[in-house]
Amino acid sequence: MTVEVKSVSEMPPRQLSCGLDFCSVPDIRSSLTVASEAGYNFVCFPIVHPRFKREFIGGKCKGRDGPFTRSDLILPGSDWNTLIVGKISSYIDVDCLVPAQRKQYEAAFIQELQYASHLCLPAVMVSLHGLNITNLARLLNNKIQSNCSYQIWVHVPMECPSVGSKNYYLNENDGSEKEDVLKPCTWNWWRKFHSLANWESKLGLALEITSDIPTEEEIIRWMGEPIKCILISTAVFITNKSGYPVLSRAHQALVKTLASLDVQVVIKGAIRHGQIKYYQQYLEHLWQNPLHSDPLQAFARGYEDYLQCPLQPLMDNLESQTYEVFEKDPVKYNEYQRAIYCALLDRVPFEEKENAVQVVMVVGAGRGPLVRASLNAAQKADRKIRIYAVEKNPNAVVTLQAQQKEVWGDQVTVVSCDMRDWKAPEKADILISELLGSFGDNELSPECLDGAQSFLKDDGISIPCSYTSYLCPVQSSKLYSEVRLCKEKDKHPLHPFESPYVVHLQNKFQLSPPQTLFSFHHPNRDEIIDNTRYECRSYKVNQDAVLHGFSGYFETVLYKNITLSILPETYTKGMFSWFPIFFPIREPVHVKGGDTLEVHFWRCISKKGVWYEWCVTQPVPGPIHNPNGRSYIIGL
Amino acid sequence: MTVEVKSVSEMPPRQLSCGLDFCSVPDIRSSLTVASEAGYNFVCFPIVHPRFKREFIGGKCKGRDGPFTRSDLILPGSDWNTLIVGKISSYIDVDCLVPAQRKQYEAAFIQELQYASHLCLPAVMVSLHGLNITNLARLLNNKIQSNCSYQIWVHVPMECPSVGSKNYYLNENDGSEKEDVLKPCTWNWWRKFHSLANWESKLGLALEITSDIPTEEEIIRWMGEPIKCILISTAVFITNKSGYPVLSRAHQALVKTLASLDVQVVIKGAIRHGQIKYYQQYLEHLWQNPLHSDPLQAFARGYEDYLQCPLQPLMDNLESQTYEVFEKDPVKYNEYQRAIYCALLDRVPFEEKENAVQVVMVVGAGRGPLVRASLNAAQKADRKIRIYAVEKNPNAVVTLQAQQKEVWGDQVTVVSCDMRDWKAPEKADILISELLGSFGDNELSPECLDGAQSFLKDDGISIPCSYTSYLCPVQSSKLYSEVRLCKEKDKHPLHPFESPYVVHLQNKFQLSPPQTLFSFHHPNRDEIIDNTRYECRSYKVNQDAVLHGFSGYFETVLYKNITLSILPETYTKGMFSWFPIFFPIREPVHVKGGDTLEVHFWRCISKKGVWYEWCVTQPVPGPIHNPNGRSYIIGL
Repeated sequence: MTVEVKSVSEMPPRQLSCGLDFCSVPDIRSSLTVASEAGYNFVCFPIVHPRFKREFIGGKCKGRDGPFTRSDLILPGSDWNTLIVGKISSYIDVDCLVPAQRKQYEAAFIQELQYASHLCLPAVMVSLHGLNITNLARLLNNKIQSNCSYQIWVHVPMECPSVGSKNYYLNENDGSEKEDVLKPCTWNWWRKFHSLANWESKLGLALEITSDIPTEEEIIRWMGEPIKCILISTAVFITNKSGYPVLSRAHQALVKTLASLDVQVVIKGAIRHGQIKYYQQYLEHLWQNPLHSDPLQAFARGYEDYLQCPLQPLMDNLESQTYEVFEKDPVKYNEYQRAIYCALLDRVPFEEKENAVQVVMVVGAGRGPLVRASLNAAQKADRKIRIYAVEKNPNAVVTLQAQQKEVWGDQVTVVSCDMRDWKAPEKADILISELLGSFGDNELSPECLDGAQSFLKDDGISIPCSYTSYLCPVQSSKLYSEVRLCKEKDKHPLHPFESPYVVHLQNKFQLSPPQTLFSFHHPNRDEIIDNTRYECRSYKVNQDAVLHGFSGYFETVLYKNITLSILPETYTKGMFSWFPIFFPIREPVHVKGGDTLEVHFWRCISKKGVWYEWCVTQPVPGPIHNPNGRSYIIGL
Repeated sequence: MTVEVKSVSEMPPRQLSCGLDFCSVPDIRSSLTVASEAGYNFVCFPIVHPRFKREFIGGKCKGRDGPFTRSDLILPGSDWNTLIVGKISSYIDVDCLVPAQRKQYEAAFIQELQYASHLCLPAVMVSLHGLNITNLARLLNNKIQSNCSYQIWVHVPMECPSVGSKNYYLNENDGSEKEDVLKPCTWNWWRKFHSLANWESKLGLALEITSDIPTEEEIIRWMGEPIKCILISTAVFITNKSGYPVLSRAHQALVKTLASLDVQVVIKGAIRHGQIKYYQQYLEHLWQNPLHSDPLQAFARGYEDYLQCPLQPLMDNLESQTYEVFEKDPVKYNEYQRAIYCALLDRVPFEEKENAVQVVMVVGAGRGPLVRASLNAAQKADRKIRIYAVEKNPNAVVTLQAQQKEVWGDQVTVVSCDMRDWKAPEKADILISELLGSFGDNELSPECLDGAQSFLKDDGISIPCSYTSYLCPVQSSKLYSEVRLCKEKDKHPLHPFESPYVVHLQNKFQLSPPQTLFSFHHPNRDEIIDNTRYECRSYKVNQDAVLHGFSGYFETVLYKNITLSILPETYTKGMFSWFPIFFPIREPVHVKGGDTLEVHFWRCISKKGVWYEWCVTQPVPGPIHNPNGRSYIIGL
């Protein structure tokens, strides 16, 4: 139930992993040597040499002599297992319309897949050439369901070749040239295949970068797909002044964008620029100039799209190392300090600074970072304060007490108590807390602060004074298939789909911009305080897409114009205390460009705890998720 | 369902991991530096400094000022998490008979455990001092059930101190000295504790080597316990001529025996030999002279007590790398070659060697090791042979066909067919197979060879010609708790306890020597062939022990006096193709010294497959395991 902890500098920088594709391989060992000497990390080989093309009759191979492919003895097992991606023979078309021929292709296809298993290849590559892929999806899904050991890389071009080369054809009626108007969308090939094959996590996309680059919108949509590898033909490279292969600026930008998803690269096609090693060297160069290098990206390295259960700091006690990580945030406590500084200046005029002592209460003080921020702010503002540090975790109290004794002295009083139960000896001028989760209220800040405000003066200030959650519909088959793996035997079978996850979202596509959802203000002076919420939001969708769930964010106002945000549009730069939250849905929803997507969201409360329920009502109504908090509840 | 594959040289040699115990720690940082500079890998510190000894009243701590222990800020989290084993304060006795005092101790105990969680310590150490440990077991079991993050090391001396020092006391009646006759057995302390705490795998034994060494029998019994660490007091060391600390020969042998279980070591007690680093240096020296270094130990490194599902080569096709590993066995194929050599010499007199051609059929030829052994044997014997290599795995057939074409030539015919279905064109003189599993018949060699013998000449030879399984009752709480973790959601809930496992057994104690179980002979010329079996075996048990299951082995006669064996007593030296098999039982059975242990074992057959059923009938009758093969069946 806790966040995993690692030190910021632990992960190595991203390394390029580059493969070399061979369309035919006269000699496996020498091809492998060629690739390795040119700096490539792996190769793509046909599983079966074309010379061994087979004919199956009535399910049995025609009585030909000799083996159907090359012997495994050519390489040691560890080479097959780590260096070679096996390609299915290109002549095989298991969706062929002629039944007798289709059966032959099926038999050859299964034989190749079985031989790939035999060799323990890490991955097998198949190509999609259109929408006629239903039987292919069935056969591969069967293989995955029977626990094949390899990944399946599905090769799809970013743009359909017929569009890329602007295929003109003669109009049959008048003989005039006419542009092909169908413009097949290759993303739809992949979407169909992926849906049919049950979004299995063993299916990865091998996306071929084409000479023509799709629109920005379409590129962003590809970013929501589980891209395992990008293929680049040597024909896509242009020649620079010195005669070496380089990519155009547009292609460079595209490759760097895709590289942020930690993809591997495969070079294919004939050598057109002197030597095959130049392509690898050029890519190596690209990889050394990454797009992002801010503290968040460095901190989050290795956590990309990794699902975590949200912390429940109210119900569970955080561990020492969790405090340690969060205390290292380079921005958050600075902003708190600024907010406290401003509040102190506002509350105590210059002429009163010698006499007035502001009572500051830090509720949920943890190991003391907000106590330190308060002391710093007071010193900087030249105002007198008296601090109460209230903390319910007895282990963190040890740290507070030690600092109180050794560093802070009488200015700070440590209170080992739940803020909801504490009987304060006096009232506070400023109530400071950091109880916000990735979705704002999801660590029960409203409930805690409603309890604590009983000891806040009538004109007292709460820092933060408000917060708002944001919701955004996203496509991410990667997260969807990860969610599906979260089954636990003692829980409701739908539990994985009815729980939110904290996740450093990378491999996703936003169907429409985020919108605000729930807001809370403190202190809350309503006569009857009601923290339940119910909102409905409509999103306009611009292009065909698949909805896999909703990402959630928050913005908070600490004091006046001092805010913190994890919303991508307004992100507080350099802060790494929160990853976004993700609410999945049970079944992916196919959405058309132009559709309106409508979602309803509830915040519900019982004596036991707080939970969310949610459902999609447009374009088609779906089931309500997490009724009665059966799968996920935040304990009070 | 397949064996995991690694290359023989992959695992590093065992390294000593040595810790230093501190009974009190005035300054944590400097103690850590002392230990690290003296070469120690970790330390054992009290979780709470004795100065912080607490008194709890009515469940609440007496109103004392200040923290109850030292602050976590003294060390970075990664140090707490990797370098420090936390010791529970020795004054705490949660089995104290005075209720008010017991409640105080419980509160302090739980507070220390919670602080250990807070610090993310890797392990916590508690000590047993007798049989009055029921409440301690309950509290720790509760902690484990609520998912504590640390291991629990249970400190037990090998010999009770009162025996070690030969405590004499005055006889009250006649004033004469009398030896203490109770001789408490510390193994019983541990057994009681471990049973009460549900044999949880988070519980490890921290076994203290005492000056007095127990009997050989008792030492062997300790070897069946999950020893995580051994503690050695500096008082156990003697001084060598140069003044350095060394262990006596007997202690050396004991430590080396325990070292084979991959234990860590902790040095405790005052410095009695100049400098604390000398103890670590001496142990380092001991670790560099390991007990075992034969090919099996090297091959099996890393697989100690690791449960694997037995292969089902009849139902599943083996992978390339699995063949590759087994073909590397340095002994097995030599013995086969010797057997074939002898059989050829026996069947073809010298004077017929030019004309007679022996028909050799290798059934289940895999990638051809037995074909090679046959060709070598024929050449060495100077006899003519013609080989049929029959193999059902079409992927392995590729390898056979390639070798036939490139190396073997017309002397070998490759047949891609299940041996049970093959219509042979002629009859064989010698039928060679390697279809044996760890329990002999458990890969269905009897059923396969009964089918294949239809094409063996009446006077033909089967290699192997017989095999026998062996069964042995064992104590191994480590395996038992591993078995318990093997639950799978779609299988019968008792499935883990009703399936055999292939395992390189190390952390075990044999309650009594192995006995033969089932035997099979080939060719089988019985009128009606019946491969079902039912046997009962009785074992005499010499000392108190706990039965957790049965280990299984086999011996086979290849030809005349040429045999292979994985039975420990007759092991074929250097062979590594088989690990033992382990049949668990549902609930551990406590057995007393002098008891008879009786077990019944069945081999059952249906159209679908073959399975075993088993039960214990003495000292107490237990349930029959795997009725109808509900949990485990070997597919035909």
